[in-house]
Amino acid sequence: MTTRGALKYEGKAKRVYATDTAEEYVVEYKDDATAFNGVKKAQIGGKGAVNNAITAHLFPQLEAAGIPTHFLAQLSETEQRVRAVTIIPVEVIVRNVAAGSFSKRLGIEEGTALARPVVEFCYKSDALGDPLINTDTAVALGWATPGELDRIRELALKVQAFLVPYFAARGVKLIDFKLEFGRTADGTVILADEISPDTCRFWDAQTGEKLDKDRFRRDLGGVEDAYNEMLRRVMAPAGT
Amino acid sequence: MTTRGALKYEGKAKRVYATDTAEEYVVEYKDDATAFNGVKKAQIGGKGAVNNAITAHLFPQLEAAGIPTHFLAQLSETEQRVRAVTIIPVEVIVRNVAAGSFSKRLGIEEGTALARPVVEFCYKSDALGDPLINTDTAVALGWATPGELDRIRELALKVQAFLVPYFAARGVKLIDFKLEFGRTADGTVILADEISPDTCRFWDAQTGEKLDKDRFRRDLGGVEDAYNEMLRRVMAPAGT
Ligand SMILES: Nc1ncnc2c1ncn2[C@@H]1O[C@H](COP(=O)(O)OP(=O)(O)O)[C@@H](O)[C@H]1O
Ligand SMILES: Nc1ncnc2c1ncn2[C@@H]1O[C@H](COP(=O)(O)OP(=O)(O)O)[C@@H](O)[C@H]1O
Ligand SMILES: [Mg+2]
Ligand SMILES: [Mg+2]
Repeated sequence: MTTRGALKYEGKAKRVYATDTAEEYVVEYKDDATAFNGVKKAQIGGKGAVNNAITAHLFPQLEAAGIPTHFLAQLSETEQRVRAVTIIPVEVIVRNVAAGSFSKRLGIEEGTALARPVVEFCYKSDALGDPLINTDTAVALGWATPGELDRIRELALKVQAFLVPYFAARGVKLIDFKLEFGRTADGTVILADEISPDTCRFWDAQTGEKLDKDRFRRDLGGVEDAYNEMLRRVMAPAGT
Repeated sequence: MTTRGALKYEGKAKRVYATDTAEEYVVEYKDDATAFNGVKKAQIGGKGAVNNAITAHLFPQLEAAGIPTHFLAQLSETEQRVRAVTIIPVEVIVRNVAAGSFSKRLGIEEGTALARPVVEFCYKSDALGDPLINTDTAVALGWATPGELDRIRELALKVQAFLVPYFAARGVKLIDFKLEFGRTADGTVILADEISPDTCRFWDAQTGEKLDKDRFRRDLGGVEDAYNEMLRRVMAPAGT
């Protein structure tokens, strides 16, 4: 049994609680949804449970594929136990197909396949709108070391190599996704945060239908159904 | 004598003309000044002559420092003969001190020294406002190869290593600068375009006074005087 202690941080989608050991936290997934740096806000019924379950299902498989992660155990419908880390304030985006801010910034039509995966680093700052940065900037401003950034890139591409076929085998095209990494007390870089329809773009492989947070951002309707459908597909065996 | 042929391109600050050989162009420097993607426009008296003279003075010294450049010869007050290249549509910014778009994007006060030089790549597109990119994006979208980008970074840091002490010895702090590179017919990457108060931020080392295009962008007055002062300092021997 994990005793949930004091609230350490509350973010837009999750709460992080202390436990009886300094090395572990409890993460509680909320139904709260925000977009455009918190300008747009709502509840998505069942989102916390879906994102908790999807992350809890994927992270052990990533661990088995050689990616150290913060995940320890699912505790309840909306809670999981994780390794405590200091989050590196660099969001890592891996893109297979142009969409979202990338399409807008570069004038490239959404849905255009990229000749090779693009890894982007952004500075994790709601106030600044998570601006794009590069490795020089992250190092010059003290956010990570060159060695950490190399490792983060290597791990992000390992996550990509696992997730793309995983979703393809379940009828889902992985357009792009966002990862966060953290340092444990001994300085090891591990994958933290979540992998869910909040942090990935998922398009149905047949119809192109969006099965992710863009349904909320763009007022497409059917948000809860899309999250539930993604949970179903993540849990399904390959090829079903 | 170089015969100036047909106008090949006209940019915001220069005109490029064909010559009697396909390997060479004539570049004519204009007094036209633009800012904010051409939204703000004016003439700066004598700017063409200043920028032509500064570039013509610096590029041979860069060449001597091991950086291949397009510069061949100054032809007149406002014209120079250069090697014809295909411009790589990646603008290269080297930053020593936070300023301009970097300060705004990252919420870092202008004038904050960077712990180490930051090299940024932007997509050269007036329509898109020269957006920040990274090497993955440049490669995925076919703008340059990984080998070219490595070479461009190496050359940009060599330019930095030459320019910083050059300007310091003339009482000028080099805050940041923008370079463009091109490919010759045989695929060699060389430094092209210009190095001038249009493309660098120069601050007086004693007073911090701006001696560059920011005087125009920010309506600080004394624009022509600043350009002339920079010409004087560039031409002066070190330590004077
Ligand atoms: N293992 C961990 N240890 C410490 N913090 C974590 C861990 N995993 C995720 N976090 C952080 O928990 C916070 C809450 O998550 P979330 O609600 O998604 O926040 P945000 O609003 O920043 O997206 C985030 O700052 C996230 O980086
Ligand atoms: N050696 C060269 N060969 C071909 N084009 C060049 C060379 N040097 C510079 N150019 C290009 O000449 C054009 C005119 O310069 P400029 O007026 O500064 O243009 P811009 O409005 O794009 O800044 C630019 O597109 C620049 O990239
Ligand atoms: Mg989050
Ligand atoms: Mg120019």
